[in-house]
Amino acid sequence: MKYRSGLTAWLVIIFVFVPLGLLRAQASSEEKPFAEAHVVLQLSDQERESVVLDVANNLIRHYGGPDLIDIEIITFGPGVRLLLADSEHETRIDSLVEYGVRFYICENTLDSMERETGVRPEVNPQAVPVQTGVAYILEKVAEGYTLVRP
Amino acid sequence: MKYRSGLTAWLVIIFVFVPLGLLRAQASSEEKPFAEAHVVLQLSDQERESVVLDVANNLIRHYGGPDLIDIEIITFGPGVRLLLADSEHETRIDSLVEYGVRFYICENTLDSMERETGVRPEVNPQAVPVQTGVAYILEKVAEGYTLVRP
Amino acid sequence: MKYRSGLTAWLVIIFVFVPLGLLRAQASSEEKPFAEAHVVLQLSDQERESVVLDVANNLIRHYGGPDLIDIEIITFGPGVRLLLADSEHETRIDSLVEYGVRFYICENTLDSMERETGVRPEVNPQAVPVQTGVAYILEKVAEGYTLVRP
Repeated sequence: MKYRSGLTAWLVIIFVFVPLGLLRAQASSEEKPFAEAHVVLQLSDQERESVVLDVANNLIRHYGGPDLIDIEIITFGPGVRLLLADSEHETRIDSLVEYGVRFYICENTLDSMERETGVRPEVNPQAVPVQTGVAYILEKVAEGYTLVRP
Repeated sequence: MKYRSGLTAWLVIIFVFVPLGLLRAQASSEEKPFAEAHVVLQLSDQERESVVLDVANNLIRHYGGPDLIDIEIITFGPGVRLLLADSEHETRIDSLVEYGVRFYICENTLDSMERETGVRPEVNPQAVPVQTGVAYILEKVAEGYTLVRP
Repeated sequence: MKYRSGLTAWLVIIFVFVPLGLLRAQASSEEKPFAEAHVVLQLSDQERESVVLDVANNLIRHYGGPDLIDIEIITFGPGVRLLLADSEHETRIDSLVEYGVRFYICENTLDSMERETGVRPEVNPQAVPVQTGVAYILEKVAEGYTLVRP
């Protein structure tokens, strides 16, 4: 009985608390298993396009390579223009994607643009669509990502 | 003795670690007991008024209704204009308040405006005054809310 | 055997879980041991200089004195101008530094400015240089600071 009581406490620690701790610590370990930090860069102002891309590049350099930092760039509102087909930053986006940076675009914003102009804007094929940009941010923060709006 | 040692470990787990975990997880469960996420939207730029209101509406739609997402909108600096009596967004504010969104206005900002103009601006009665906008944000984040500045 | 099993569970709780909890809670207790909140204020827009300084002052007033709130101001991109030698805010910076507010400047930004203009800008001696502003933010958030971009 007493042995089992101690054992159960151990089992609780091993199977409940340890996994909970890991869940908090290991944000998206599938994407970047060796990353020292996990960051969501928010782009919702068109004039911040270059700053966001610079920050992504600086972070990769700072951490010593693309495997050591896990970066997602989430665009919504006027920020989506970075990921439209005619963006001037296409080359920089491609090179960041090769480094494992993921780009997301808010479909609610695209829906609004379509309603206003009658045409749905053409999107960069590198961009992953998500329905609601800020809801996606909330999910990532819950997984352990740090939100930064450069 | 041994039984009590195991039992005490259990009691520590149940009364110390489990409540600590719940404290972290349950942000403001009184306001929105069924909310899946708790978010503070910061408005400190006048030109972001519409974006902040759009984000609130999109989140309510995304989560499937006003009970499933807990939203506070905190205004300070030039952002307070959304909550002054002559705001063009009064109807949208009223409809978000009906959905349980809470609006806060920074009294330090109102104090500064009064000092500069000699008149204290009239405030939308839906706005809850807080002394210092950013201090209120820090409290909410400590309760488990995620801060987003759209 | 059984006694040791219970004891080991205790030791695990005391030496593993308790310190982990403290690590999370005690952000930078060396700098401001009595601080009730730890905040990183991000300045990356030149037009937000005054707002950031106002927020720092308001927080110190709100918490009842400089020992009760731990504030770091991190500048990068166009935000670094606050900390260049010719800034109009030098007096306000000095008075905040006396209150224990720390100012940081991103060296990557200074490097870019030097590449563009041929001259490295002169920096306020109160500013502490960090290589990559956003990487420094990520470190502070991991230590328990709350990031706010006023």
